[in-house]
Amino acid sequence: MATIKSSAFKLALIQLGGTGKDKTVNLALARAKVLEASKGKSGKEKVDLVVLPEVFNSPYAVNQFRSYAEVIPSIEDFPSTPAASLSESVAMLSAVAKEAGVWLIGGSIPELDPVDEKVYNTCTVYNPEGTLVAIHRKVHLFDIDIPGRITFKESETLTGGRTMNSFEAPFGRIGLGICYDIRFPELAMISARQGCVAIIYPAAFNCTTGPLHWELLLRSRAVDNQFYTAMVSPARSEDKSAYQAWGHTTLVDPMGAIAGTTDEKEDIVYATVEPKVLEEARKGIPVTVQRRFDVYANVAESKPTA
Amino acid sequence: MATIKSSAFKLALIQLGGTGKDKTVNLALARAKVLEASKGKSGKEKVDLVVLPEVFNSPYAVNQFRSYAEVIPSIEDFPSTPAASLSESVAMLSAVAKEAGVWLIGGSIPELDPVDEKVYNTCTVYNPEGTLVAIHRKVHLFDIDIPGRITFKESETLTGGRTMNSFEAPFGRIGLGICYDIRFPELAMISARQGCVAIIYPAAFNCTTGPLHWELLLRSRAVDNQFYTAMVSPARSEDKSAYQAWGHTTLVDPMGAIAGTTDEKEDIVYATVEPKVLEEARKGIPVTVQRRFDVYANVAESKPTA
Repeated sequence: MATIKSSAFKLALIQLGGTGKDKTVNLALARAKVLEASKGKSGKEKVDLVVLPEVFNSPYAVNQFRSYAEVIPSIEDFPSTPAASLSESVAMLSAVAKEAGVWLIGGSIPELDPVDEKVYNTCTVYNPEGTLVAIHRKVHLFDIDIPGRITFKESETLTGGRTMNSFEAPFGRIGLGICYDIRFPELAMISARQGCVAIIYPAAFNCTTGPLHWELLLRSRAVDNQFYTAMVSPARSEDKSAYQAWGHTTLVDPMGAIAGTTDEKEDIVYATVEPKVLEEARKGIPVTVQRRFDVYANVAESKPTA
Repeated sequence: MATIKSSAFKLALIQLGGTGKDKTVNLALARAKVLEASKGKSGKEKVDLVVLPEVFNSPYAVNQFRSYAEVIPSIEDFPSTPAASLSESVAMLSAVAKEAGVWLIGGSIPELDPVDEKVYNTCTVYNPEGTLVAIHRKVHLFDIDIPGRITFKESETLTGGRTMNSFEAPFGRIGLGICYDIRFPELAMISARQGCVAIIYPAAFNCTTGPLHWELLLRSRAVDNQFYTAMVSPARSEDKSAYQAWGHTTLVDPMGAIAGTTDEKEDIVYATVEPKVLEEARKGIPVTVQRRFDVYANVAESKPTA
């Protein structure tokens, strides 16, 4: 089992409100909130990691993703890409991470891959120097059909990612997922077993599956893997014709307790990740060393089967 | 993915009370409750599957298991074993399944393996003819240490099982686990992916981890795998020097809703497994066909790694 290397760190989870069809407005709103969030609740603290929600720069609608999509450079190409050549969302995220001096999980944005010409739902992560350090394309597309309640089919215009991703910060390794990815236990299992102290999902559940499963999924991924889990949602839109997000941005601790949460309105959830809580959970109920990989496979050490 | 073959069936989950140090008394109590439960709540129904709790014939105490342990014949040897040669708990369970005309998950009992001379925490299952059809030895031993709350170490006197198990009944395939096994998601993942309509865990959580995680674990195994999950507990003992079980015997449906539950006192939970609910869950939120085994392994099709 991987060792967890981590120190206590402060998180600000931005439940962004007020966004709509104007990308420039959306980016300005996000930028202002990252600067606000980076100073903590008192306005005088030093926050380590700021997180934005899923698809924060675009309407959450399958017929809009392609027109809002931007080309994202690879992590390798980023350092040699002039700032003026970056797409507008990537440029803003990189610049604000540097200005605020924080690690920034830039929610997700629609991404156009210039090679395969497909569109992805993609999370980018920046260090306090503004350098792109991780990219996660949503692996599991949100295609659901609950008659009379909600039907949504991301796969009409999006393509699923093909890799699992995490990044290493001085305060610990953080796993990445996006929204519907949380329904598939493997991403959290593998992240935790590879040494992540937390997994963070920019997300946008709806008002049918939100009350049913949002907190359940967060708490179970936390307890099964004994690490922190968070989902960061947009605020519920006041425009009733827009996608109605569940909100309820939440951080859960390794015992399954809520470490920070809110309702459906615009807000910033400030919380602290405490490695001590993780260590105590793992000592008290030592599932991380009791697994029976002589009876079943360790998914973190097995090859894809399909 | 395995197809789920199932028809609606009725369950009676016995939250057995009144047991103590006298095995003969414990067996008589269990026998009477199986006969009562098999007739349903009205006393006039036909229940298909009856379930007893974990370690129902013995005190739940590491220093008692070996003295209560019995030899259990293999499934292969059972048909040729004369009833008079069966150990007293196996004889009672086989006879009462036949008398009641039900499928019976006989909770668990301490088992002595005559070959390796080790003691296991073992579940036996009988068909309505009284034939032993499945055996599950608890794979994950309950060794926890939450300072000031609960310390328990099954591994002081018990050995963990080495196999996963399920059985096929006319109403569907049922996966088996025992109590602490539920903390390890793999057993439920593999059972569901191999075509089980439910996984049932005879269990005996305590009053520290019960309120924290009992319902969370049941609901998350159900939602992740979109099948039914149940834990069947003893009633809370009135003897305060005895192990204090959490009770709260519960059946959860494939959407994570509670399909039947109770408090900590002696009771029988009657409930119905409805394949229609499972089909609708899988159609509405189709995770069972959206998994990305090109990105991570399918634990149900991978070899043990240790």
